[in-house]
Amino acid sequence: MSATIAVDAMGGDRAPDEVVVGAVQAADELGVRVLLVGRPDALEPLVANDSAGVEVVAASEVVEMHEPATAVRRKKDASVVQCAQLVKDGKADAMVGAGNTGATMAAALLRMGRIRGIARPAIAAPIPVPGHGGQILVDAGSTVDCAAEWLVQFAFMGRAYARTRLGITDPTVGLLSNGEEPSKGDSLRKEVNALLAPEEWFVGNVEGRDLLHPGVDVVLTDGFSGNVALKAIEGSISAMASMIFGVLESTPEAREASKIILPLLLEAAKQVDPDYVGGSLLLGVQGVCVIAHGSSGALAIRNAIERALEAVDADVVGQVKEAVPHAG
Amino acid sequence: MSATIAVDAMGGDRAPDEVVVGAVQAADELGVRVLLVGRPDALEPLVANDSAGVEVVAASEVVEMHEPATAVRRKKDASVVQCAQLVKDGKADAMVGAGNTGATMAAALLRMGRIRGIARPAIAAPIPVPGHGGQILVDAGSTVDCAAEWLVQFAFMGRAYARTRLGITDPTVGLLSNGEEPSKGDSLRKEVNALLAPEEWFVGNVEGRDLLHPGVDVVLTDGFSGNVALKAIEGSISAMASMIFGVLESTPEAREASKIILPLLLEAAKQVDPDYVGGSLLLGVQGVCVIAHGSSGALAIRNAIERALEAVDADVVGQVKEAVPHAG
Repeated sequence: MSATIAVDAMGGDRAPDEVVVGAVQAADELGVRVLLVGRPDALEPLVANDSAGVEVVAASEVVEMHEPATAVRRKKDASVVQCAQLVKDGKADAMVGAGNTGATMAAALLRMGRIRGIARPAIAAPIPVPGHGGQILVDAGSTVDCAAEWLVQFAFMGRAYARTRLGITDPTVGLLSNGEEPSKGDSLRKEVNALLAPEEWFVGNVEGRDLLHPGVDVVLTDGFSGNVALKAIEGSISAMASMIFGVLESTPEAREASKIILPLLLEAAKQVDPDYVGGSLLLGVQGVCVIAHGSSGALAIRNAIERALEAVDADVVGQVKEAVPHAG
Repeated sequence: MSATIAVDAMGGDRAPDEVVVGAVQAADELGVRVLLVGRPDALEPLVANDSAGVEVVAASEVVEMHEPATAVRRKKDASVVQCAQLVKDGKADAMVGAGNTGATMAAALLRMGRIRGIARPAIAAPIPVPGHGGQILVDAGSTVDCAAEWLVQFAFMGRAYARTRLGITDPTVGLLSNGEEPSKGDSLRKEVNALLAPEEWFVGNVEGRDLLHPGVDVVLTDGFSGNVALKAIEGSISAMASMIFGVLESTPEAREASKIILPLLLEAAKQVDPDYVGGSLLLGVQGVCVIAHGSSGALAIRNAIERALEAVDADVVGQVKEAVPHAG
């Protein structure tokens, strides 16, 4: 039986239009059943009669991008809350949301619940490694004030997911710090480094410059610095892209040469384009929740649904339970 | 009278050769007097007789890149320690070091001392903003376990330095966080946001993606996440550069077109090239200390010396004392 994915059709800067297009594409191409959750008056005109595999599920409220995550407690019929409820009730195998990240996490946590023995959830974000595949950054923004023991759990969870996401059997984990020596780092890092030192897969401290480069599979950090790093990468990539496009437009000769270069560049750039790289996974909850970028267009939504499907097929939730000591 | 800059001639991956070349270049072009501090047997063969303005000052020891910062206490005749001592003794107006960053900071702190009333030093690192000049990231790696009051001082210090470094009269400060709303951030960020809220120049929380983009002049954070962000930017820029050079080499047509594109690209890339962007300034100590990148070549050293000269001419130390409440 094909999997069912609940998609927050009202979430994200380009919802609902692009979300619907991406969902229809996913249903077509992946053979998945998609539940588009949101206001029927907004969604039904966008879903064609012949969109096989796509159904609208009514939810009357929306958590806006600027609202605090706690809005999910008040807005019980919000699309993102109903997505999580569908997973909880077994009516969907996974949820995908491109809206307010805090609210998406909160809804998943509130409705699906935490895995027993897991202290805090963590976001596993894919980091591109051009020419070499990818990395997982965990936590990319879920838990900002962290205890050392929580980071240790993030390491086990990140590793469990990296097997599926990166397709490798024995992923390595590095602790993001301000220097490679174990003596580097704030007090939290020193504690975590000591706790993980006995693990064979722990490569010790890594640095910000190890991101986007081959050498370590899972980069471990707290949700605060992880979010800072993730967005600094985004900012750097976009600044570099603007600079390069500026160069290609800068002279008549450059514009001529760019006819050759630009298509090759755009093809290569897919490696670092969030639309292709796909969404992040919320680890530690009792279900699959993929968090897509707020600016997701149709392609990003389609790919986030594919990531959700992969996580369902690989039973990532079961793998996390098995991987984390004393969890399950 | 021209300024005198003490340079750690033994510090950095490419010392002493490239350091000497950069120092000679700076003396020539900037009319500055450079004291090359290090082992005379290593340095004298590299300094030509006609290198006006460059003198070797003997120091018998070297703090290696992998040594802990505390090595400066033991190695009292290390080149980096002697640089700081020359500033302390008034024999040099500033120091420049491309070696072990922790040791360079520790030497400056130990020998020059902290400015009275400043709790902790901070590194002000230049962040390029392609097409728009630059930003200052403070603290980029000096103080990793921070109290809120220290971050507030970093904001005042960063602002004081941004006037000189960025050439603007009224720099804005943003607090690096995991979301723009004041409610976002870990407990430290929430405290700092509240403390800075009354300041007119405080723009509130900013995110990693605001780095390298116009909008905020000084990006404020603790030394841990600042170092992570700085190195994530470095990693992103280098990964993007490799990707682009790969594209330019990927087909015969691309190689042909790159004859036009490459020179334009290399010119534009100077904006994000650490060799041109220049070194960081250690704020909060009783003297000017410029920290250059460990991989600095001659050009980077020359430019770091120019940054030191600028800071001396602008009396940045005096400006910091004046800017920070109750300091001096």
